[in-house]
Formats: sequence, C-alpha cells, structure tokens
Amino acid sequence: MASFALSRRTVMASAGALAAAAVLDLPAGIVAAQAQDAPVSHNPGFYRYKVGDITVTALNDGFGKRPLEGFIRNAELADVEKALEAAYLPSDALSISYTTLALQIGDRLVLIDTGNGDSGAPTSGVWMNNFKAAGFRPEDVSTVIVSHFHGDHINGFRLKDGTAVFPNAEVMVPAAEWAFWMDDAKMNAAPEAARNAFATVRRVFGPVAKDVKQFEADKELVPGVTAIAAPGHTPGHTVFAITSGEGRLMALSDTTNHPALFVRNPDWTAIFDMDGPQATATRRKLLDMAAAEKMQVAFYHAPFPATGHIAKAGDGFELVPVQWSSAI
Amino acid sequence: MASFALSRRTVMASAGALAAAAVLDLPAGIVAAQAQDAPVSHNPGFYRYKVGDITVTALNDGFGKRPLEGFIRNAELADVEKALEAAYLPSDALSISYTTLALQIGDRLVLIDTGNGDSGAPTSGVWMNNFKAAGFRPEDVSTVIVSHFHGDHINGFRLKDGTAVFPNAEVMVPAAEWAFWMDDAKMNAAPEAARNAFATVRRVFGPVAKDVKQFEADKELVPGVTAIAAPGHTPGHTVFAITSGEGRLMALSDTTNHPALFVRNPDWTAIFDMDGPQATATRRKLLDMAAAEKMQVAFYHAPFPATGHIAKAGDGFELVPVQWSSAI
Repeated sequence: MASFALSRRTVMASAGALAAAAVLDLPAGIVAAQAQDAPVSHNPGFYRYKVGDITVTALNDGFGKRPLEGFIRNAELADVEKALEAAYLPSDALSISYTTLALQIGDRLVLIDTGNGDSGAPTSGVWMNNFKAAGFRPEDVSTVIVSHFHGDHINGFRLKDGTAVFPNAEVMVPAAEWAFWMDDAKMNAAPEAARNAFATVRRVFGPVAKDVKQFEADKELVPGVTAIAAPGHTPGHTVFAITSGEGRLMALSDTTNHPALFVRNPDWTAIFDMDGPQATATRRKLLDMAAAEKMQVAFYHAPFPATGHIAKAGDGFELVPVQWSSAI
Repeated sequence: MASFALSRRTVMASAGALAAAAVLDLPAGIVAAQAQDAPVSHNPGFYRYKVGDITVTALNDGFGKRPLEGFIRNAELADVEKALEAAYLPSDALSISYTTLALQIGDRLVLIDTGNGDSGAPTSGVWMNNFKAAGFRPEDVSTVIVSHFHGDHINGFRLKDGTAVFPNAEVMVPAAEWAFWMDDAKMNAAPEAARNAFATVRRVFGPVAKDVKQFEADKELVPGVTAIAAPGHTPGHTVFAITSGEGRLMALSDTTNHPALFVRNPDWTAIFDMDGPQATATRRKLLDMAAAEKMQVAFYHAPFPATGHIAKAGDGFELVPVQWSSAI
C-alpha cells in the first residue's frame, strides 16, 4: 500500500501539474490555482471528428457567466430557471461556452470564428492553448471565415495590442455584416452602450479592411464550405454547410445561444438577438431543417464539443450530443 | 493568404503529430495512422470534476464494437436498432466505451476499476496514456477498488506478461465477487465459453491473493467512498457512493451498459448480465433513486466523460450529460 506524507505528495503533485502545463502550454494562472489544491491540469479543449475527408477540430475558448435576469426578452425568470433545472444546470447564473471550428480541407487550414482572444471574460481566453495542443500553429491558418461580428467571435483575430494573430490568413466576412457594422451613420445612431460593438469591429478589421473578402450567401467560400444567410441575431449572421463526400455538418453559429434554453424553447429571444422576431424565424427554420434531415450540427454556444443532432421535443427541439469517440 | 505546397504541408503536419504524440505520450500506431491522412493527434481522454473536496478524473480506455444481434436477451433486433437511431447512433454495431474513475482524496490516489490493460479490443488500451496525460503515475496509486470481475474492469491491473501495473496499491474487491469467481467448483461447472472469465480473475489477482482486501456492502472503503451492493450483472457487482461536503456522486459501474439502450429501456437485459431479472431489479432501483434525488451519476459504459444526471422519460429514464467545463 502506498503512503505519501502530505507534503511530499503536494510537492509531487505540483511538479506534475507544472510539467503538464509546460507540455500542454496551459495558462500559468490556472495551473498555479490547481497546484495549491493538489494536482492538476485540465484536458485541453479540442475534439476532432470527420466530415467526409474534412477533419473538423472543435476548439473551446472557455466560458463566460451571466446573470439570468434580463437575458431573455420574452420569458419569465421562473420559466428560465425551470428550463435550466430541467437540464440539471445551475439556475443562479448561465455558463455560456465558446467553441470555434478548425477545418482541414486538403492543404488548407480554415477557421470558422476565432474566439475571445485577450478581450473576453477571465474564464475565456484559453483558445490559443487548445489550438496549439491540437497541433496547429497560427501561421498555418490559410483562411479565417467569420459568422458575424460579435466580439466573442472576432476578438481572437487581433490582440488588444494590435497584433494580427494569423499572419498568413485571408479573412472572409459576410457582406451584410460588413455593411452594417462599418457604417458610421449606424454607429453614430446606436445607443451609447452599443457603440462599443462598432468600435470592436473597427479595431479588429480596420487594419486589414482593404484585404477583407466580403461574401454573399449561397457562395462556396472554400471547397466544401457554403455560406447560408441566417439573419436576426445580427443583420449578416451566417451559418455554414460543410460537406465532403457523404459527410455533412451544419455549423449553426449563434442560431441559438445555450441549447438548454433556445433549442428547447426556440421562440425565446436573447438580448444578443438584434432582431428578435427575425432571429426566431431563422432559428425555427434551421432547427426544423436539421431535425427533418437528421444532419449533424455544431453550435458556437453548445456545451463542448458542441456538436450533435436535433430531435423534435414538444413544441421545441433538443440537442442530442454526439457520442465522444477516442478514434477520429 | 497562406499557400502551402501539399508536400510541405504534409511534412509539417506529420512533424506536428509526432511532436504532439511525444508530448501527450500517445501510442505511436495511432499517430502514424493519422499522419498519413494529414495531421493529427486526438485529445487525451481525461476529464476532471469536483465532488466536494474530492477531485474526480474520468479516464477513458477507448471502446469496443460488437454486433447487435444477440446482445439483448429480451428485445427484438428491430427495437434495438430503433433505440440507437433515436440516439443518432449507428445501428449496424454498438460502440461500447470504457471510462474508469481516479479519485484524489486527501493524499490518496484511488482508482475505481482499471480498464482493459493490454487484453482488450485493438480500439481499447488507451487508458495508460490518458492516465499519464492527466499527470498521474502508476506508482502514485494508493488504492484500487474493483466494482466486479469482468475483464474490461480488471485487466488493467496486470499486464499479459504478469507485470503488476500499480506497484504500491492495495486492492479492495467485493467479497461476494471473490467468493464466486475464486470458487473452483463454480469454474468447473461453468460452460466452456465462460471458463475464460474465471481464468482471467485468477491471472489478475492470483499473485496477490493473500493481500487482497475483501469488502462487504455498506462499508466505507476509503474516506468518502462507500460500497453499495448492486447484484445481478455479476453476483458481487458493486456501485459506489462518493461523498464530500455537499458533493455526491453515484458511480453506477455496470448497472447499465450503453445508456441509449438500458437507461432508456431499463427492463432490457444484456447478455453480460449474469442474472437478468436481478440485474433489472437493481437497475430500476438505482435509476429511480438517482432520478428522485437528482444525484450526479457516472457509468462505466456511458459516452465519455460518462457522467450526468438521470431524468425520468416515459417508462424508462434518460441520461443528461453534464455540461463540459474548462474550469475544474
């Protein structure tokens, strides 16, 4: 039987955690906090699966917490709490996670969205560590495709100090999104609290404005990735059909925020949905299609690895997560 | 825009995969297979969560595939296929995964079950890599607790060549399990096909037979871990209540095989259940209790990370997986 003195065990555990941190390139702060309390590092948040010949890597960027009060425009707080309890989630606050996609398509490495970079909540910002743990390097990225211009999707493209994170990547954005957010008249007409979102877009894309490729819906952006207009959440919000051989994945971006709330209750509208009724119509249309065609889907804000299938359930739907596989 | 010649990209990708393999200590075979096809390593299969002050690490040991035909004693094949389709799983074969638990309790490192070691399907046997990626070493294990004596739970305790994998660990086993499997009369009375299971038990535990600690149900084995008799799957099959402060986890071992089949349809009996009616009674009792008390549960054969909550659904139940968290 093993018997370690506490002090020795703690030292060993700390050393193990630090070694693991070095290996996995985890943020030092996280490791230090864990080392006090015995071991240890967490699993790096990447998960790979195939869509035909395309290798998809889901890359987690941590989470942010927000109070429930005021989050859903058209539901009673008690009903929101009930929905979270039904999903066995805490009902005092909502934990919203972030998961981007990296697609290996032939010799290209294509990102869909980029996470929070160094601009998000303290519990986010782990994307780059996960990206590196997955074996990628920023200079390998050939294309960044953007679903829409909210900060949690675009801040990873440029650090606060102005550094471009993916030096060799072309960037492709929805034309309708560009038109809206780069319009000075719209920025000036926006309420004070909303103006920061316009500033973020300018900070991130301003330095490469002349090189940004704007795309229309129904265009194939890179082989196997087709843009589909999904307006409502933002004016140019876009989802993506990813196809290869028999494989098909619908990357549903922010068609819903947390599935326990908005896949289950597709008529609920989050305050992040700029046009509530249009967002709801888009959501119902896409979820209906995914359910009818039994497509695999991915959501930016679903629990990691953020992919599964949509089943009809009552007046709404539910997300059935994929079975995690140790083989790709 | 990045543009890589295919050959260069392939070389880079292979180098990345090999580097990742070295870092994560992945089996060379897996990496080589992936490197041909562009990158890449998979995420190591460990996942951490807290139960009060206890740090739980779910450790995946891959999966095995088996034909559906003949797997469930008392269901039509068409109904089994329908259950898998309802869960958006392939219905040509069942992928059964293996997930053990490591518990850090004060200065102890306690394992519940040990995986397949080098005796399982070629798609299993990844446990040791995941255990090491989680920052553990075999010599750190102080206690191995065994739920029951099926090979996929005990073969990880001893390699085929006889090597004891956890040199400093005490081993604790259900007394009823020991009595059954170590009984020569029962072995000799068993049908030829079943005799191998008796031989496995003798191979694994024979060399340490005099040191094995046999436990009765309702005993606290180590601080916070209490054995609960759950007979039927095997005569001494045991589940474990893991408690610390307000935290509580029921480790349900093989109370069910794949939840999409047996949590949804608790009256179905797998051929691995040695006493079908008793296994079913135990299963209903434990699932009812978990649902009523809203306990977090873990299953050995649930999709990784193999933990969630039990909700009532129709005449059966469903497993609602936990929300993956990047924070422990």
